[in-house]
Amino acid sequence: MISEKKEYIRLIDGEGGRATSRLIEDVFVRRFRNEFLAPLGDAAIADFHGARIAFTTDAFVVEPRIFPGGDIGKLAVCGTVNDLAAAGAKPLMLSAAFVLEEGFDRTELAGFTESMALAAKEAGVPIACGDTKVVHRGKADGVFITTSGIGEVVPTCAPTAGMILPGDIIAVSGDIARHAASIVAIREGLHTDPQIESDCSPLWGMVEGALEAVPEIHAMRDPTRGGLGGVLTELAAQSRSRFIVEESTIPISQQVANICDLYGYDPLFMACEGRMVFIFPEIFRDELLGAVGANPYGKGIAVIGRVEAGEGVVIETKSGGRRLLVEPEGAPLPRIC
Amino acid sequence: MISEKKEYIRLIDGEGGRATSRLIEDVFVRRFRNEFLAPLGDAAIADFHGARIAFTTDAFVVEPRIFPGGDIGKLAVCGTVNDLAAAGAKPLMLSAAFVLEEGFDRTELAGFTESMALAAKEAGVPIACGDTKVVHRGKADGVFITTSGIGEVVPTCAPTAGMILPGDIIAVSGDIARHAASIVAIREGLHTDPQIESDCSPLWGMVEGALEAVPEIHAMRDPTRGGLGGVLTELAAQSRSRFIVEESTIPISQQVANICDLYGYDPLFMACEGRMVFIFPEIFRDELLGAVGANPYGKGIAVIGRVEAGEGVVIETKSGGRRLLVEPEGAPLPRIC
Repeated sequence: MISEKKEYIRLIDGEGGRATSRLIEDVFVRRFRNEFLAPLGDAAIADFHGARIAFTTDAFVVEPRIFPGGDIGKLAVCGTVNDLAAAGAKPLMLSAAFVLEEGFDRTELAGFTESMALAAKEAGVPIACGDTKVVHRGKADGVFITTSGIGEVVPTCAPTAGMILPGDIIAVSGDIARHAASIVAIREGLHTDPQIESDCSPLWGMVEGALEAVPEIHAMRDPTRGGLGGVLTELAAQSRSRFIVEESTIPISQQVANICDLYGYDPLFMACEGRMVFIFPEIFRDELLGAVGANPYGKGIAVIGRVEAGEGVVIETKSGGRRLLVEPEGAPLPRIC
Repeated sequence: MISEKKEYIRLIDGEGGRATSRLIEDVFVRRFRNEFLAPLGDAAIADFHGARIAFTTDAFVVEPRIFPGGDIGKLAVCGTVNDLAAAGAKPLMLSAAFVLEEGFDRTELAGFTESMALAAKEAGVPIACGDTKVVHRGKADGVFITTSGIGEVVPTCAPTAGMILPGDIIAVSGDIARHAASIVAIREGLHTDPQIESDCSPLWGMVEGALEAVPEIHAMRDPTRGGLGGVLTELAAQSRSRFIVEESTIPISQQVANICDLYGYDPLFMACEGRMVFIFPEIFRDELLGAVGANPYGKGIAVIGRVEAGEGVVIETKSGGRRLLVEPEGAPLPRIC
């Protein structure tokens, strides 16, 4: 038994910032260490009979369970489909495990399974196995859903942070921070017109198109918990390179920007649930933007930066300054997904 | 949207009896219906590049989290390894998703991950990916762990209920009801000497030996929630055959039998977490008993019955009578796993 300081789990440990990274490193990776966990991507990849399998899991505890643009069921399917997509893997099968609180409304549960079935159908993947547990009233919060997924990595594709090179450019498939902003708006009882909708959507089709057009994509990552900023700082560190990001080119809706201003959130660290970050050689700029932009979920794609030798993520601000992007301990947004 | 009567989730819906089966059928299978879910075994099986992949998931909410013979971490790994084993699949990778309650002791969590790492090592399978979410104090009960697993089905093996034939015999790899009895003893503050230990253990090694000795095994199933009785009634129904079970041959320890008597539980419907039911042609009796009995977890193997044409599970009682085994709505044992 490795000794551990007496410490307690805090909300911030689950918010996808540095606190989460430390918890994962200290409590899990240190004990589970193996060749698959090491790359710490969104999915584990294993060779299997001449092909490659991607495997991933996510627990969903979002509160409220229903939000504009989705619900916990849709989110649970999209989250896992998108983690597979980020690994360049076509989703083959999903699993779904439910922890239900005694007294939870069966009709509401049925609505979530309906959402799951619809999202899975759109992504072309069956929900192939599952489990259900019930705990006493007050011992869970309605419903928690854990989905796992297996997929087949496209043969020509191996996007990992290690392939990122100076000269690459960085694009994001649409406006950021939308999912988190939609949750904040509901929690704060804010009535905007139009309502801010979460970007929650299954991205395999969009990614498949991108990989067909540009097999040379060097890295993909979906900026969920921890946001675009979290993905960029992580990929810059893993690839030992410097990312230069031009703030004015980062797509964000005025409504979302206003909500962030109002409540003091940095949109760079707020979750998306239907966006993908692509890092790839600049010569493929037109091909990638064309392929992603042709997909309904990729219409807002924008190039936001470039890769250089060095380290860290540098933001070129709208006012012409430069600042180093520092990942916070956690975004103050528990249960965003 | 399919309309649903206004109903609420009850504890009994999670106890692995008929209520659980109905919930799964009404709320999940009806919406997720696909070729993989249809057989409703412990794992989904898919063809992949000339081989077969098994995929399974389970959520663990056991209370208390630590019990004689194991803890929620060991249980989470064994449960998924054993579901793969029951599908004839060598475990390749596991995933682990944690829902943590704010304020949960990090040292206790580290102990569970230590248990997971040990059990995974014994089963020869890496914990390849994971996720962690934190919810507010009072919105979960310490820690819930969902594990999923993928495995490769042994080429010579395809045990499914459909292969069961009259003339087959039924064996169980050791004494039953031990896991549930150990949980009951703790909950009731019962001090027995020796303490009743859960049978919680990873069974892939035992099953691998059995499949090498007898490739013709027709069905395997681990009798967890719902117990031996649940597995037998399910397999009899799925195979459209009649199982004759001789009560006196069912292995059960005196201590466990006493606890069941004391609290009015039927041991036939109490969970095991380290046992496997084998159904196979009688001519392989010696080979199977020899192979399973050679494994430390299979020393208590016993033949308990036979398959005939007909339907239902018939118990030949110790007093010479016959009764039809009827699966209860649920065992009154919430959060047993």
